[in-house]
Amino acid sequence: MRRRAMREEAEAVDVATLLPPIRDADDAISEAFLAAVEAGLAEGPSDELRARLRDLHEADMGDLLEALPAEARVRLVETLGADFDFTALTELDETDRVGLLSHLPPLMVAEGIRTLESDDAVYILEDLDADDKAAILAHIPAPERVALQRSLDYPEESAGRRMQTDFIAVPPFWTVGRVLDYVQQTDDLPETFYEVFVVDPAYHLMGAVPLDRLLRTKRSVLVTAVKTERVQVVKASEDQEEVARTFERYNLVSAPVVDDAGRLVGVMTIDDVVDVIQEEADEDLRALAGVGSDEELSDTVAYTAKSRLPWLVVNLGTAFLAASIIDLFAVSIEKMVALAVLMPIVASMGGNAGNQTMTVAVRALATRDLGSHNARRIVLREVLVGLANGLALACLLGLIAALWFGNWQLGGVIACALVINMLAAGLFGILIPLTVHYFRQDPAVASGVFVTTVTDTVGFFAFLGLASLWFHLG
Amino acid sequence: MRRRAMREEAEAVDVATLLPPIRDADDAISEAFLAAVEAGLAEGPSDELRARLRDLHEADMGDLLEALPAEARVRLVETLGADFDFTALTELDETDRVGLLSHLPPLMVAEGIRTLESDDAVYILEDLDADDKAAILAHIPAPERVALQRSLDYPEESAGRRMQTDFIAVPPFWTVGRVLDYVQQTDDLPETFYEVFVVDPAYHLMGAVPLDRLLRTKRSVLVTAVKTERVQVVKASEDQEEVARTFERYNLVSAPVVDDAGRLVGVMTIDDVVDVIQEEADEDLRALAGVGSDEELSDTVAYTAKSRLPWLVVNLGTAFLAASIIDLFAVSIEKMVALAVLMPIVASMGGNAGNQTMTVAVRALATRDLGSHNARRIVLREVLVGLANGLALACLLGLIAALWFGNWQLGGVIACALVINMLAAGLFGILIPLTVHYFRQDPAVASGVFVTTVTDTVGFFAFLGLASLWFHLG
Repeated sequence: MRRRAMREEAEAVDVATLLPPIRDADDAISEAFLAAVEAGLAEGPSDELRARLRDLHEADMGDLLEALPAEARVRLVETLGADFDFTALTELDETDRVGLLSHLPPLMVAEGIRTLESDDAVYILEDLDADDKAAILAHIPAPERVALQRSLDYPEESAGRRMQTDFIAVPPFWTVGRVLDYVQQTDDLPETFYEVFVVDPAYHLMGAVPLDRLLRTKRSVLVTAVKTERVQVVKASEDQEEVARTFERYNLVSAPVVDDAGRLVGVMTIDDVVDVIQEEADEDLRALAGVGSDEELSDTVAYTAKSRLPWLVVNLGTAFLAASIIDLFAVSIEKMVALAVLMPIVASMGGNAGNQTMTVAVRALATRDLGSHNARRIVLREVLVGLANGLALACLLGLIAALWFGNWQLGGVIACALVINMLAAGLFGILIPLTVHYFRQDPAVASGVFVTTVTDTVGFFAFLGLASLWFHLG
Repeated sequence: MRRRAMREEAEAVDVATLLPPIRDADDAISEAFLAAVEAGLAEGPSDELRARLRDLHEADMGDLLEALPAEARVRLVETLGADFDFTALTELDETDRVGLLSHLPPLMVAEGIRTLESDDAVYILEDLDADDKAAILAHIPAPERVALQRSLDYPEESAGRRMQTDFIAVPPFWTVGRVLDYVQQTDDLPETFYEVFVVDPAYHLMGAVPLDRLLRTKRSVLVTAVKTERVQVVKASEDQEEVARTFERYNLVSAPVVDDAGRLVGVMTIDDVVDVIQEEADEDLRALAGVGSDEELSDTVAYTAKSRLPWLVVNLGTAFLAASIIDLFAVSIEKMVALAVLMPIVASMGGNAGNQTMTVAVRALATRDLGSHNARRIVLREVLVGLANGLALACLLGLIAALWFGNWQLGGVIACALVINMLAAGLFGILIPLTVHYFRQDPAVASGVFVTTVTDTVGFFAFLGLASLWFHLG
């Protein structure tokens, strides 16, 4: 009886009166809040829970949806109805977003999408399959639909897909006062904006006036007199990675987007770019490890396994190449089995050193810090670093190997082999990404396998070859 | 005579009348522009070159300085004098920035720094050694010096170091009209701002009004009526990584910074955060490859070699561990040398698969996408992915090995060993980062060496052990 009462009390605390905090100490959605939401969805949510869910920031709602099982996500959106802010969907993994949307009535999705800023609407629509997309677009009135369709016609990952199509553009003969009045009196302005654009009658961009400058200028001044002319402009067809680099380099908060004819068609803002910067750095990291750039935590076992397999098959090929080098010296190994014991050390040290150099090179190429003006110096530096660390480690490795096998000559041979392989690691660790980049390929994707191939084959060949010569094992 | 004239003409084109474009097709500083600048510095720059350099965007000036030799940098800054925008120094590598500043007169640096926004001034000062810093600060008048000093007193990489200390704060009883008039009539406002803060007399933050909302509100309305109350606040002592996550999650453009007593002391803006996001992603990538997070392209050979050596020494340790496993089976290898030829394949495949899993886990932990709510599912997924790819690759590897050595049993043994190692790679590739994260350490730094140790030892032990048992080699 006592237990029953306590449990009821605990439940009352959970669901009705005092909702647990949404995030735990680790900054993830808390188990307690998750349980409260699931209970609320099962029994019909209390007013307090409903109010709490309605007021959640889109980012928290997104994380909450991710943490819920797939069926509960659908129920949550349906329960909240018009109170559900579709912006939260932009925070979901692609798989989860597409899955959730396919279980919601197209009319409801269409209504939710109409409340969004145009870039978010496009982001949500772009990954859907053609039928779902058409069903939803059919419920959106013509002018809005045409605008969305136009953005969707730009290539994937282009500025045209990421831009906001709502912006404020004024003619050059307006005064600052008139612009301020216009902003104050017009209703359907973009939700947030940081600058007002000045355009000619054909919508060609003439300049931009940041809001803070607008505020600091006398009302009687013409906008054309205070506009910045050297505006960093983004082309709608430009790749988002290119756009991110421009934002980063010039510390932009927003930038006008123009079409091929130079007409203003939208604006890109920093919040979209932050995601791109994050994605691009992630892509490099994944590519270096041989993981597909579109892999997500929500992917299934089958999808994940299939996407990682090709890289492993390539590595199997290079591993066989290394094995065939070893096979050349099978007779030597039979005569002196210590060679088999020690040979992976030389290869692995070279692999690690090559990986260090390559990682630095790949990122420096991605951020354009490494280019023709400093390539020669960096190549030389990496070779000398390889040589320096090679000499230091060779002393250590040679000493340990000599003591282990009681054979000073073996220690000398492995030390020499290590220096050779560390030199090769430094040289090819930088030359390979530079070469891949020169041929306009992504060095993050293709360099790793080449560098490992070099350090494995050079490592085995140098050690086994030197040993065979020195000890006359051949 | 003819040649002389042509050369003069060419020089005229380079330096005087038609300067080459600053960036080449690869988006790096062009060799031609670099040559023109170096020539100009040697002979005294033409008016056109001087004008061009004066008007360069800080980002372009930063890249230009990086591309020039160290002595030329000093000469360039001295040549431009008061026309040189010290903001460009924030774009330099730390080593280059510190080197350049140590060659400039402290008075000149002090004057340059006074023209900067406070966050940029702190950024430039913080890396200098104590003497240089004191010499420069001595030339800065008391009120500004105290403000800089206060920012410098916050811990490294904290919001206090990155914040702007210029901001607009108004009392709650002001009307929107009064705020607009204040902004229009006051001279020493921050260079750019995106919101106006509402504070009580003790400077406790009461809310914020974004500029666009200010513009859209009637002049007679009180600011307190239009302020956003649910402002994402940053603590001055907070780590910049934490701040970046908040900006990213809530798509912020600026956020107020408060001290421990809740008083408004500054504002962080997205442009500083973008750099932090980039840095953090870079740090993960470098850590995974065993490269120090502070390594820069401008570092010397000695510094680079020294900073990369510890990781290589740790790897030497794990390589010896793997070698000692092989040594256990020295007798088996002597009897069947094919084992030595094939054994690196099993270890290397496991290493690659483990690296894939680990990379995904490390990034998911860093972005808080992986947490207690989904850890179990992801561990299971990774194990199953390891099993699936292990089975697929085992067939391939077994077949090739059997054909190569004309020994079907050897093919079977290596296939079994590969499945075991791929399972271990999936399991430990995810468990190790999770465990490191659980103990509040950075999984990017520590996981790699553990995962490689597991896949090497399991790989050699499984293959050599199974072979010894099967072929009775022991």
